[in-house]
Amino acid sequence: MGYRILETDDIPAYLHERGHWADVTDIQVREVSDGNMNRVFLASNADGSHSLAVKQALPWVRVAGPSWPMSPERADAEARAYEQVARVAPDKIPAIHGYDADNYALVMEDMSDLEVLRTVLNEGASYGPDTSARIGEFVAQLAFATSDFGMSSADRKALIATSVSPELCKITEDVVLSEPYIEHEHNHWLPELTDLAAEFRADARLRTEVAELRHVFMTSAQALLHGDLHTGSVMVGEREGAPVVRVFDPEFSFVGPIGYDLGLYWANVLVSEERARELGTLSDHGDQLRLSWAAFETEFRRLWPTRVDTFFDDAYLDRFLARVWTDSVGYAGTEIVRRIIGFAHLTDLTTLPDPVPASRRALLLGRELIVRREELTSPEAVRALV
Amino acid sequence: MGYRILETDDIPAYLHERGHWADVTDIQVREVSDGNMNRVFLASNADGSHSLAVKQALPWVRVAGPSWPMSPERADAEARAYEQVARVAPDKIPAIHGYDADNYALVMEDMSDLEVLRTVLNEGASYGPDTSARIGEFVAQLAFATSDFGMSSADRKALIATSVSPELCKITEDVVLSEPYIEHEHNHWLPELTDLAAEFRADARLRTEVAELRHVFMTSAQALLHGDLHTGSVMVGEREGAPVVRVFDPEFSFVGPIGYDLGLYWANVLVSEERARELGTLSDHGDQLRLSWAAFETEFRRLWPTRVDTFFDDAYLDRFLARVWTDSVGYAGTEIVRRIIGFAHLTDLTTLPDPVPASRRALLLGRELIVRREELTSPEAVRALV
Repeated sequence: MGYRILETDDIPAYLHERGHWADVTDIQVREVSDGNMNRVFLASNADGSHSLAVKQALPWVRVAGPSWPMSPERADAEARAYEQVARVAPDKIPAIHGYDADNYALVMEDMSDLEVLRTVLNEGASYGPDTSARIGEFVAQLAFATSDFGMSSADRKALIATSVSPELCKITEDVVLSEPYIEHEHNHWLPELTDLAAEFRADARLRTEVAELRHVFMTSAQALLHGDLHTGSVMVGEREGAPVVRVFDPEFSFVGPIGYDLGLYWANVLVSEERARELGTLSDHGDQLRLSWAAFETEFRRLWPTRVDTFFDDAYLDRFLARVWTDSVGYAGTEIVRRIIGFAHLTDLTTLPDPVPASRRALLLGRELIVRREELTSPEAVRALV
Repeated sequence: MGYRILETDDIPAYLHERGHWADVTDIQVREVSDGNMNRVFLASNADGSHSLAVKQALPWVRVAGPSWPMSPERADAEARAYEQVARVAPDKIPAIHGYDADNYALVMEDMSDLEVLRTVLNEGASYGPDTSARIGEFVAQLAFATSDFGMSSADRKALIATSVSPELCKITEDVVLSEPYIEHEHNHWLPELTDLAAEFRADARLRTEVAELRHVFMTSAQALLHGDLHTGSVMVGEREGAPVVRVFDPEFSFVGPIGYDLGLYWANVLVSEERARELGTLSDHGDQLRLSWAAFETEFRRLWPTRVDTFFDDAYLDRFLARVWTDSVGYAGTEIVRRIIGFAHLTDLTTLPDPVPASRRALLLGRELIVRREELTSPEAVRALV
């Protein structure tokens, strides 16, 4: 069966045929596409006792249309990533009920009772006690299981081969890890930031440090990553009185440097802090980088005794985690910078009454994180900079 | 057509059928298998005007027999590596006339007029002016062309996926990069080295440094490597009055850290120097590490302006080459150590009247190269240690 684009009206029959929905007379479907890339439909029955989400990758970027073609194979990467995470951290992703490789469509848990973390933060709420810890644990569990510590050498080679993702990695290599530092038509910024954008493009030291982070991104096959772990890829809420955190949208997944996942999250954390500072709504923002790192490190060290390859000794673990930390700080910097003078900006800043002061502070912080990452050896050192 | 093991008598018909040999009444074939893994046949006609080599990978390790099975797919890796090198350094490998993937057999240039570099050195000859320079250039040309500097991001991802080599990488990960530092049945050594072997196994610092080099080997996808670049993988000689250097046997090829190729060569260079010192036949041995590095660096820098990705700036090149240097020094150390207290030893040392003094010197040098690689920042610093 070939690929077909699913429309709202197709969903009842589609879910029925694939064994996900018994009674197609009792189903309501609505399209809730929200991200840049894909279509999402929600299906539910009348009494709300059964509901599912269907996510389909289109052969182009959804918000741009067919003029920006993009292989729907990104859904394969997403399904593979969910499969890996389901083995080790099933509580931190939506339940996946099925993947239809012909149509690049995932049938998954309806998470419409939860909210996107970025939205929650933009509305002035705090993170709460669990969010960043769960995210740190998520990165540790996925990274450990898919590293040479958690997987046999042969399985790792197979994972590396099946997880290459040329098209989506190229987006990151370009949009995040080079364009903001050169003249490029994608780049745009607030007029009041023109001086800093020019300064960044002229900064030779900054360029070399970003080149290094970029080359590490391209060559360092440490573990399977989420690949796009910003606060828009996290859902939060409560179910039966308990906090729930779900990481989703791992379509940029590939085997790369672990620090890229942590760094992306930290960049979004630090930008949300600048927003809150501007609005006078600062609460627990300043503690999230530390909390997510502590949870990551604790979980990674907890898993360490289960490693499949005991040649790696405890002293090497210390050294490895220090390297992941340093990479994370650097990637946090690149993610901040690209979100202010690059292609795709953040609503955290763009919806501020005056986005300039917070954007300037964040940009300058981003540069310091990149350039001084080797000397910023602890969460406290990063705090001192903020 | 399925796989069949070629015997000497099969070669005339085999070469004829595959279009490599017209007149099967005028062909002499002899088996010249020499390495541990594969069979090699040489075919020539009566007047010596036409000759070819046939190399076939068996489904086991040749010297061990069927009790040590090993996938013949290693020949695919070898053919792929030759194909990549042929694009950029055809003068430094044997001419490849065809690859028969069904039978894992390469038909290639007869190099029986050349000699294996290790043999030449063991017989007391010098390197001559070109050998190490050609090898440095070989590594630079292959590495540059298959790095993110010489190949588009998408082509690189495809290369990484097709070049994974689980079985042969595992051999290196075990035999070179862990067994010598732990108790293992593979390990053996001269009785007079028992103290050093025990000391090495008890050396926590050494273990951690080797763990790091091992993890870099497993995760650093810098470029396609030869993967086994010792002096037994190099043929030297003269043709029409000009020196000839040919690198062969790249069956351990995979995408890894460039320093592993240079380091393997350097280890063999340093061990051959200890042999010559012992025999009083030292000539140009002490200059070969410097010459091969200089040729590598010069060639890499010569190719740099042709890079496909100009985001990488000159300052990053300096930093990258410094990293390759440091890795190379470390891998040189691991290769020396494993060749004296690990599984497979070197005739350079085993054929000495008294192999103990040279072996002790080499072992101690190997450890220093591993442990102090970050401070040994130049060929002169390594010389000072020798």
